[in-house]
Amino acid sequence: MKPTLSDTIVALATAHGSAAIAIIRLSGARAIPIVDTFFYNRELKKKSLITRKSHTVSFGILLHQEVIVDEVLVTLFRSPASYTGEDSVEVSCHGSPFIQQQVLQLFLHAGARMAQPGEFTMRAFLNGKLDLAQAEAVADLVASNSPLSHQVAMQQMRGGFSSKIRALRSNLINFASLIELELDFSEEDVEFANRSDLKALILTITKILENLISSFDLGNVIKNGIPVAIVGRPNAGKSTLLNVLLEDERAIVSEIPGTTRDTIEDEMTIDGVLFRFIDTAGLRTTTDLIEQIGVNRAYEAMKKSAIIIYLFDAHTLSSGDLREEMNILKNHLGTSQLVLVANKIDSENREDLKTEFSDYPHMIFISAKEHLHIDLLKEELVKLFDTRTLDTSDTIVTNARHANALKNAAAALSKVKEGLDSKIQSDFLALDIRYALEELGNITGQVTNEDLLENIFTRFCIGK
Amino acid sequence: MKPTLSDTIVALATAHGSAAIAIIRLSGARAIPIVDTFFYNRELKKKSLITRKSHTVSFGILLHQEVIVDEVLVTLFRSPASYTGEDSVEVSCHGSPFIQQQVLQLFLHAGARMAQPGEFTMRAFLNGKLDLAQAEAVADLVASNSPLSHQVAMQQMRGGFSSKIRALRSNLINFASLIELELDFSEEDVEFANRSDLKALILTITKILENLISSFDLGNVIKNGIPVAIVGRPNAGKSTLLNVLLEDERAIVSEIPGTTRDTIEDEMTIDGVLFRFIDTAGLRTTTDLIEQIGVNRAYEAMKKSAIIIYLFDAHTLSSGDLREEMNILKNHLGTSQLVLVANKIDSENREDLKTEFSDYPHMIFISAKEHLHIDLLKEELVKLFDTRTLDTSDTIVTNARHANALKNAAAALSKVKEGLDSKIQSDFLALDIRYALEELGNITGQVTNEDLLENIFTRFCIGK
Repeated sequence: MKPTLSDTIVALATAHGSAAIAIIRLSGARAIPIVDTFFYNRELKKKSLITRKSHTVSFGILLHQEVIVDEVLVTLFRSPASYTGEDSVEVSCHGSPFIQQQVLQLFLHAGARMAQPGEFTMRAFLNGKLDLAQAEAVADLVASNSPLSHQVAMQQMRGGFSSKIRALRSNLINFASLIELELDFSEEDVEFANRSDLKALILTITKILENLISSFDLGNVIKNGIPVAIVGRPNAGKSTLLNVLLEDERAIVSEIPGTTRDTIEDEMTIDGVLFRFIDTAGLRTTTDLIEQIGVNRAYEAMKKSAIIIYLFDAHTLSSGDLREEMNILKNHLGTSQLVLVANKIDSENREDLKTEFSDYPHMIFISAKEHLHIDLLKEELVKLFDTRTLDTSDTIVTNARHANALKNAAAALSKVKEGLDSKIQSDFLALDIRYALEELGNITGQVTNEDLLENIFTRFCIGK
Repeated sequence: MKPTLSDTIVALATAHGSAAIAIIRLSGARAIPIVDTFFYNRELKKKSLITRKSHTVSFGILLHQEVIVDEVLVTLFRSPASYTGEDSVEVSCHGSPFIQQQVLQLFLHAGARMAQPGEFTMRAFLNGKLDLAQAEAVADLVASNSPLSHQVAMQQMRGGFSSKIRALRSNLINFASLIELELDFSEEDVEFANRSDLKALILTITKILENLISSFDLGNVIKNGIPVAIVGRPNAGKSTLLNVLLEDERAIVSEIPGTTRDTIEDEMTIDGVLFRFIDTAGLRTTTDLIEQIGVNRAYEAMKKSAIIIYLFDAHTLSSGDLREEMNILKNHLGTSQLVLVANKIDSENREDLKTEFSDYPHMIFISAKEHLHIDLLKEELVKLFDTRTLDTSDTIVTNARHANALKNAAAALSKVKEGLDSKIQSDFLALDIRYALEELGNITGQVTNEDLLENIFTRFCIGK
C-alpha cells in the first residue's frame, strides 16, 4: 500500500447489509468538492457544501444526470478537525445495499478512489492524529467482544500505553545523546554520560519492560479469550456441560454476529471475562484416556489451554480410576490449571471425593443435565482467572508486535548493561542504545518504514 | 403497536456486524438529555449537549460509572427539523458489535426504550413529516435492488404518488361537501352540486384510477422482478443457460447480500431491469413435455411468468417435434410472452427454423456452453419488457395495499356514476363518495386507524 495522501478516498464505513441508514465516508483534499458536485436541495436546486462549516449536517439530494440517487444527510469535517486530519465527508444515505453501491459509484466516477483496508486510520497516523500503537488499538477496539478486551483496547487507543513507551524512550534519548556526544570527542576520552546514572536508568527501564512483556500473556488472554479445554471420558457429559454453559450466554453470543468460529468450539463471557473453549472432540471417541488414538489431539488442546476442566461421571467412575487418570493427566498439565468437575450428582452424593482428592483444590460437583451448581463452576473459572492478579489500570500489552519490540529492546538494554559492567567503548554502547530506541520507536511509530505500515494496516477492514 | 409518542426510543440504525462505525439513533423528548448524561470531553470533563445547535456534530466520550464506553460523534437534530419531527440524536460509535450493545444498553438504562420495527418512520408519519404512502416507500427504497425499483420507490417517497391521490381526493371533497350540504336541506329538494359536472369529474377520476390500477402489474414486476420461466426438455441446456446468464451478473448479485432466495431460483439485473427466474425443476426430470407427472408444476411456474423461454437442442429436436411442442405450449401461455431459444448451435446451422417458425417472432440461436449470442438473448428479454411501454415519469403503483384501495375507490365511484344515471337520492350518493374518499385517504393516511398502522410499520426493520 503506497501512502498516496494526495488521493481522495471513499468507502462504506458502516456494516454491509440492509438497514435504516448507511454511511459512505470520504477523506482527502477533494472530499468536499466531490460530494458538492451532486448535492441539491429538496426542490432539486443546486445547494453548495463548499461554504458550510465543519461539524455541520446538511440535508439534501444526490442528483446524477437528472436521476435522484438518494436523499441524504451530509456531514462535513474540515482539516485538521477530522478523524484522518484531512477534509472529510460522511454521507448518510438510505441503508439499501443497492443505494450504498450507487452512492459509492457516484463518488468513484467523480475522482475518489476506493480506500484500502485501514487507509483512513493510516492517514490519521501519517497526519499525526494517532500514533501507531493507538492506531492498532482502533482495530482491537472494533474486534473487542468482552468488557475487558474493550477496556484494554480503549486505554491503548487513548494513548496510555504510548505515553508510557514515549516516557521510557525520552529518558533513554537523553543519555543516548550524551553518549553520542562522547563519540564526537572520542580521542579526548571524556565521559559526558554518568555511567552509574546510566546503569541505574537501564535497570529501571529493564524492569518496566519486563513487566510489560510479562503482561502480554494476560493481554493475549484478554484479547482472545481464556482457552479452556473440557476433557473426560465419553459420556461424562462434556457436550451437555458445554451446552449448559453456553445456553445461559447464548443471548449475548447471538447478539454478536460475525464472531469467528472456525478454529474454536465456542466462546462465552462470564462476569466480563471472555472464555474460549477448545474442541477436544478427539477425546470424545476414545474409551480410555491413554491408550486410544486421538488422545494426542486432546493433549494438543490441553497444551493450548489456560484452564482444563476434567469432567467425570460421579456415579460410575471409581475413586481409584479417578486417581489413575489424574496421575496420567498431571504429566500433561504444564502451566494449565486443573478443575475437577464431578457430573451427574443428584445430591452431594460424592462429597467423599472432596476429602480424598484434597490435593486437587479446584473440585466442583454439578449436574449438567439438571443445571445444578453451574454457577459454582462459572465462579470457579472466573476466580482462577483472577488469581492472575488482573489490574486493568496497569498497562497491559495485547499486541504480539509490541511484545516482540519490547523483548528486542530489553535484549539490547541487557547488552548495554553488560557493556557498562565490562566498561566497553562508548560507540558499542551507543549502538545498542540506538537499537533499543529504534525498537521502542517502532511501537508508537516514531521510527517506522513502509513495510511495517503495510503489514499493520492491511489487517484493518475497509472503511476504517 | 401503541403509538406512545411520549417515550424516547432508541435503536441501531446501521446494519448489524463489525465495521468502522455504527450509528445508534434516539428520538423523543428526552433524546438529548439522555445522551447528555454520559457525554464528556476528551479529558473526561463534563461537556454539555443541551445548548448545542441542531444539525451540529460534537466529539466526546461516553462515560458510565468511570468506565469509558466509547469515543463518539454526537449529531443533534432538534424538533421539528429531524426525520421523526422530534428531538433526535445520532451517536456514531466504533462499529464493534460489543460496543454497539454497550451504547444501546447505556441509553436503555437511562430511560429510552427499544424502538419497535418502523417506529422512527411511524413517528415521522404521526408528526406529519411523511404521509403513509411516502412512509411505505421508505421501506421499499431500502429493499430496492434495481435502478427501476429504486426510481419508483424514490418517486413515491418524494410524494409524487401522494400528491396525485391528494389532488383526486380534494376534487372529490369539493363535490362531496356540496352533496352533504344538500342533505342538510333535504326537505327543500335543492341541488347545490351540479350533477353533470359531478358525473364528468367521476369519469375523469375513474379514468385516472384505472390507469393507476393497471400500472400495478408493471409496478409489481419492477419491485419484485420480471418472472421468467426457462422450460424445455431435459438436456436442452437449461441449467447451463441459467448459469451463463447469471455468471455475467454474479458480481452485481453478490454485492447485494440479503436478497431473498427462498422461493425463487435466482435474480439478475440486465440493463437496469430486474429479472427473476422461476424454478422449473419439475420439467427437468420429465422425458416428454406433456405426459409426465411434474409437468403441472412447470405449468404453474409458466402461469406466474411474464416471459417463458422455451429452450431446445437445435441438433436433436426435429422441426416437426418443435412444432408439436409449440402447439401444446400455446395452450398454456396465457398472457406470457414466449421466446424460442435454439441451443447448442456451432454456427447459425438452424437458420432454416427461423423461416419455418416465422409465426414465432422471438427466436434466438445460442450456444450456452460456448457463451455464444447470450447478449442477443439478454437484449430480447429487455426488449420484451420495453414493449410494456415503460415510462418512469408516470406514476406507478407498486404496493398491493394501494392497488386494493384504488380498486375499492373505483368501485365506489362506479356506484356513484350509476346513482347519478338513475338519479338516486343525495344521501346514497354521499355514502359512496364518502367511501371512495376514505379509500383514497387510506393510501396517504389522511384517513387511518391503529390496525392499519401496525400492519404497515411492523414490516419495517428495527431502527428505521
